[in-house]
Amino acid sequence: MVKRNRNIEVTQVTEWKGGGATRVEDYLAAEEPLEMRARRYSLGVTLRTPGDDEELVAGFLFSEGIISRREDLVALRMPSDTALERNLVRVTLDPSVRLATNSAARRFSAGSACGVCGKASITQLRRRGLRRPEAATQFDPEMLCALPPKLRAAQDVFGRTGGLHAAALFGPGGNLLVLREDIGRHNAVDKVIGWALLGGRLPLSDHLLLVSGRGGFEIVQKAITAGIPLLASVSAPSSLAVQLARELGLTLVGFLRGRRFVIYAGEERIAVSASVPAGAS
Amino acid sequence: MVKRNRNIEVTQVTEWKGGGATRVEDYLAAEEPLEMRARRYSLGVTLRTPGDDEELVAGFLFSEGIISRREDLVALRMPSDTALERNLVRVTLDPSVRLATNSAARRFSAGSACGVCGKASITQLRRRGLRRPEAATQFDPEMLCALPPKLRAAQDVFGRTGGLHAAALFGPGGNLLVLREDIGRHNAVDKVIGWALLGGRLPLSDHLLLVSGRGGFEIVQKAITAGIPLLASVSAPSSLAVQLARELGLTLVGFLRGRRFVIYAGEERIAVSASVPAGAS
Repeated sequence: MVKRNRNIEVTQVTEWKGGGATRVEDYLAAEEPLEMRARRYSLGVTLRTPGDDEELVAGFLFSEGIISRREDLVALRMPSDTALERNLVRVTLDPSVRLATNSAARRFSAGSACGVCGKASITQLRRRGLRRPEAATQFDPEMLCALPPKLRAAQDVFGRTGGLHAAALFGPGGNLLVLREDIGRHNAVDKVIGWALLGGRLPLSDHLLLVSGRGGFEIVQKAITAGIPLLASVSAPSSLAVQLARELGLTLVGFLRGRRFVIYAGEERIAVSASVPAGAS
Repeated sequence: MVKRNRNIEVTQVTEWKGGGATRVEDYLAAEEPLEMRARRYSLGVTLRTPGDDEELVAGFLFSEGIISRREDLVALRMPSDTALERNLVRVTLDPSVRLATNSAARRFSAGSACGVCGKASITQLRRRGLRRPEAATQFDPEMLCALPPKLRAAQDVFGRTGGLHAAALFGPGGNLLVLREDIGRHNAVDKVIGWALLGGRLPLSDHLLLVSGRGGFEIVQKAITAGIPLLASVSAPSSLAVQLARELGLTLVGFLRGRRFVIYAGEERIAVSASVPAGAS
């Protein structure tokens, strides 16, 4: 395979169409592991699309609760871009940052006697000090409907690979501030949050985040961590995502397609006309 | 929210359509954390759609290389179905099974001096003893094109939530053997592999696996672990998935839609007419 750049690789494939096969050139979204290390620990390995790696790491550390402010991150060092080392990031944390060595498992587990459940997961997030995003901003429904086309237009450089998720941050009036893409949905969101953290823009109090995929629990968690009041997706949220959004006061919009969307939580931030009962419309 | 069953929850939402808002009932795909424990260790927590949990755990343990045969799994104990404990699985492993306490991080990391890269990830899998799936079976292109409609037809009980990934195992002639759904793509595949493991059906030498989402590195790894010779998806694979499929001899098909698909690796298992160069067709 030929590396066109670090995001896309070009390769020869066989296309079968209506009975016949042809050799053609194809573009693939690049996927490479990235390992994050701090002190003597591995903080984890993620499969990601190379590019914006500093943002990815900063956003991951923040949205997973490992750091809680920009100052906790003293340095991010990507070893020189050699074949062997370019997928390793060495993180220098402020000495005050405590590392839980098994944080991924602890995140959802409330103790050995209790087991895990959605309620415990939400309790854990509350203990991390996650707060209801500020409620002042009102978002216009027609503005929301205009966002998916903006996302697709900004994303078209990668349209040919067909394999990338996108996350985009918009201002209160629907202006696109930043778009990041990755083969992993979580990574695209972490890159956006890392961009905001490194630029000193957190919390993102009057912004909204649009994701190309599904709005699951972890995406909702990341949005709340960054102080984002509205999370929209073009697809369906999960039950646990809706529960978390309702308990922590995030406005959650799904199925944002054409001139239609569904509000799962935090309706008060969307300037809709008075609700009418089903059947009366 | 009301639990209709453990897979689906029903809740009231606001639907905004063409200028007006209505309160309606909506169905959500259930998402709950599941923690797996063996000996004194937590093997990890996954966010999954409840249902087929034994299959999920068995498939996860096998496809991640923690166990290598059915006999390694002495018992799977789901504590009684109380609100607190139903998301915990206690696994009894054969005493011969060694547990790496940091296996998730080690899986991609080839040592402290080397860093990580796609090549190291593939090397790690080779060390686990993953072998090229058997090559005897030939698959018919027209049979492949008929699979996505079969998947959708079997999946329609969950069509209303719009939020579930599916993985389906087919026999060599295209007969559907098992379909599993989950909010996580990996989990749907693990459930299928767990079904096969618990039923004594591994390796799945002349079967094919169809997934509803993207064919990434980890999905390819899981398919190879189960001995599946052909993995198909309706969407795009990643660069690392293609690289792994080529090196370990899996047939990888993407963009399986209508009467078209793309063969990324292992073309010899698909009975296509002789390839012609691009432009000559």
